Amino acid sequence: MTTDAAAMTRAIELSLLGANGCAPNPRVGAVILDPHGDIVGEGWHERPGEPHAEVHALRAAGDRARGGTAIVTLEPCNHHGRTPPCSATLLEAGIARVVYAVADPTSDAQGGGASLAGNGIDISSGMHERAARAANQEWLTAVARRRVHLTYKAAMTIDGRIAAEDGTSQWISSASSRADVHRLRGQADVVIAGRGSVLLDGARLTARDAAGRLLDHQPLRVVVDSQGRTPPDAPVRNDDAPTLIATTAEFGAGDDGRVDLESLSRVLFDRGHRGALLEGGATLGSAFLRAGLVDRLILYVAPLMLGSGTSVINDLGLHTLADATRWQLDDTTILGGDVRLSYTLEDK
Amino acid sequence: MTTDAAAMTRAIELSLLGANGCAPNPRVGAVILDPHGDIVGEGWHERPGEPHAEVHALRAAGDRARGGTAIVTLEPCNHHGRTPPCSATLLEAGIARVVYAVADPTSDAQGGGASLAGNGIDISSGMHERAARAANQEWLTAVARRRVHLTYKAAMTIDGRIAAEDGTSQWISSASSRADVHRLRGQADVVIAGRGSVLLDGARLTARDAAGRLLDHQPLRVVVDSQGRTPPDAPVRNDDAPTLIATTAEFGAGDDGRVDLESLSRVLFDRGHRGALLEGGATLGSAFLRAGLVDRLILYVAPLMLGSGTSVINDLGLHTLADATRWQLDDTTILGGDVRLSYTLEDK
Ligand SMILES: NC(=O)c1ccc[n+]([C@@H]2O[C@H](COP(=O)([O-])OP(=O)(O)OC[C@H]3O[C@@H](n4cnc5c(N)ncnc54)[C@H](OP(=O)(O)O)[C@@H]3O)[C@@H](O)[C@H]2O)c1
Ligand SMILES: NC(=O)c1ccc[n+]([C@@H]2O[C@H](COP(=O)([O-])OP(=O)(O)OC[C@H]3O[C@@H](n4cnc5c(N)ncnc54)[C@H](OP(=O)(O)O)[C@@H]3O)[C@@H](O)[C@H]2O)c1
Repeated sequence: MTTDAAAMTRAIELSLLGANGCAPNPRVGAVILDPHGDIVGEGWHERPGEPHAEVHALRAAGDRARGGTAIVTLEPCNHHGRTPPCSATLLEAGIARVVYAVADPTSDAQGGGASLAGNGIDISSGMHERAARAANQEWLTAVARRRVHLTYKAAMTIDGRIAAEDGTSQWISSASSRADVHRLRGQADVVIAGRGSVLLDGARLTARDAAGRLLDHQPLRVVVDSQGRTPPDAPVRNDDAPTLIATTAEFGAGDDGRVDLESLSRVLFDRGHRGALLEGGATLGSAFLRAGLVDRLILYVAPLMLGSGTSVINDLGLHTLADATRWQLDDTTILGGDVRLSYTLEDK
Repeated sequence: MTTDAAAMTRAIELSLLGANGCAPNPRVGAVILDPHGDIVGEGWHERPGEPHAEVHALRAAGDRARGGTAIVTLEPCNHHGRTPPCSATLLEAGIARVVYAVADPTSDAQGGGASLAGNGIDISSGMHERAARAANQEWLTAVARRRVHLTYKAAMTIDGRIAAEDGTSQWISSASSRADVHRLRGQADVVIAGRGSVLLDGARLTARDAAGRLLDHQPLRVVVDSQGRTPPDAPVRNDDAPTLIATTAEFGAGDDGRVDLESLSRVLFDRGHRGALLEGGATLGSAFLRAGLVDRLILYVAPLMLGSGTSVINDLGLHTLADATRWQLDDTTILGGDVRLSYTLEDK
């Protein structure tokens, strides 16, 4: 016999298997318990157009689902999209009880819980909500704000420099940290970088393994480049992944005449992207921060000291300590000789 | 029965009880095992002029030391200082075997091991040497370099700023981090700060508890102030602890006409100090770093972002990444919302 709580922990684990390429859909995991409380089906949502987590789990369970319980990380959807509503599928399968962690915040999919309850199904919600939210944070933030969730990553020295006075910056961070960045790219829907760093570093912005082989999932590469001057033969425009040169012509201009970053973030969302990784440089990173569009920070702090060069963040328009932006430290992890610090913006 | 290894672990623990105020002497811990291997005496060195660790432990053991083993973190001394040589005391007590972790590097005290061996005592060294060195690192570095061991501490934002554009810096770090700084002061022989930050912040540089009460041990306060212009009524000159205004008149001047920091570090050593805590500001901290006089870094990284203001370290004369100073990350600890990063300079 498995408790609801243990089954939800398992469902959250399963949801993470859909990590790469789920967008615009959320990561969802589901576990089916038979009437004795034994696990008879597991599933997760793999990619858009394919069955939702509940459907995979119900298929695995077959007849044993009848009279049983569905444990799902997100409220079952209630709408006909590319697939029929999960609420109806759960009813048909004869499920007696549904336990979910997080309510669906989207106007078109929500209402699955109420609809099931109206059909006499025993419904409860909120179990392991915190953990389930964390596993789906990018999607939840993106749909709440109707723009992509943005993670700003940078590799810096102990004293907060991302490049030396002469512009050299390869490599500040350890091989382990660089591998970790490829992991982040492999999980992102979009990778964003400024024209400056793309030109200077000749970055390809693809997700690769230690041997340099491309990973299965490649994010859309976005180069923020007001006048579209990135040369056609720049490595970032190679055939390894799609590339978007984001210009003012397409996304509009802000007060400074450069690409309107808020508009860019919204349009990327409207095009179905959810989680974006902002790779810099300092100019573009600071502009996104100043615009309040950064949700998460991942800093690889290398055990080096420079004392001069480019600061990781410059000019947020803040002059006194009381105005400093407040973050929350979520995690510290050692990677090679580096330490990776992860922060989320503190709720106001 | 206690193994030699377990007894050495205990001796290292004991040595740390002498943490505050041991200088100019090292921290030493000792355990006496009787011939059956049972612990019959423990001791540590508390302060200069008082008995060494071995003597305390032998006194506790009394006659039971005869034929037994002395486990000591540092090679027993071989010279008449304010107390008789420990090598002689161990012989008199009838100890049959001596196990120590770290050889004494000082020319006047070393030779205890050889002298004991010459008298037929079974000697072995090097057990748990790494841990014993770490527990005594400041003293070992100081006597090896014949200058004080220097720990530079600073409280900074995520982006490496120690003050905002308008100079505000109180408080960047959390109450837990600030309490931790008082702990560091309480363990230091000397606290050093520049004229700039002392004047601006009105710091007292004393070691206090959470209620503001002075701790038992107060370090010597050193204000680096070329012309001796720190006002007599500055808080740093109050009666809570001794204060030294370090001027060029007393310590000489470097090429820039300001206090010669190498000379200051050597003279403080010659006066019996070993572990110094450098509290900033950025100007003085960077000058000590540039001079290669900083052995350890302790950075309290607060979850704040400024984007401008004073960088924690400025102008080390380094222009390209390949020249960056290399450190080694020793520890990360969460303190309130902050993370404390500790580094030691990497051996070249
Ligand atoms: N250590 C690390 O993690 C890391 C990572 C990346 C880069 N770097 C270093 O960072 C440096 C390059 O960075 P960078 O600051 O020069 O370039 P950048 O931030 O990559 O790109 C800045 C450019 O983006 C374009 N842009 C378009 N819209 C913008 C907007 N709204 N706000 C701001 N910029 C906008 C601007 O060019 P247009 O006006 O032409 O559009 C601007 O000059 C290099 O030294 C590189 O090595 C370090
Ligand atoms: N967040 C933190 O952890 C922290 C800690 C401390 C300070 N702060 C901030 O740091 C700022 C003050 O720092 P600061 O940089 O102006 O002052 P500072 O580093 O405390 O003191 C610099 C002064 O020390 C004297 N000095 C003497 N010999 C020197 C030498 N060889 N090299 C360098 N300096 C020497 C010089 O004055 P003379 O030429 O007159 O001798 C120099 O102007 C403030 O904003 C303060 O709030 C922050």
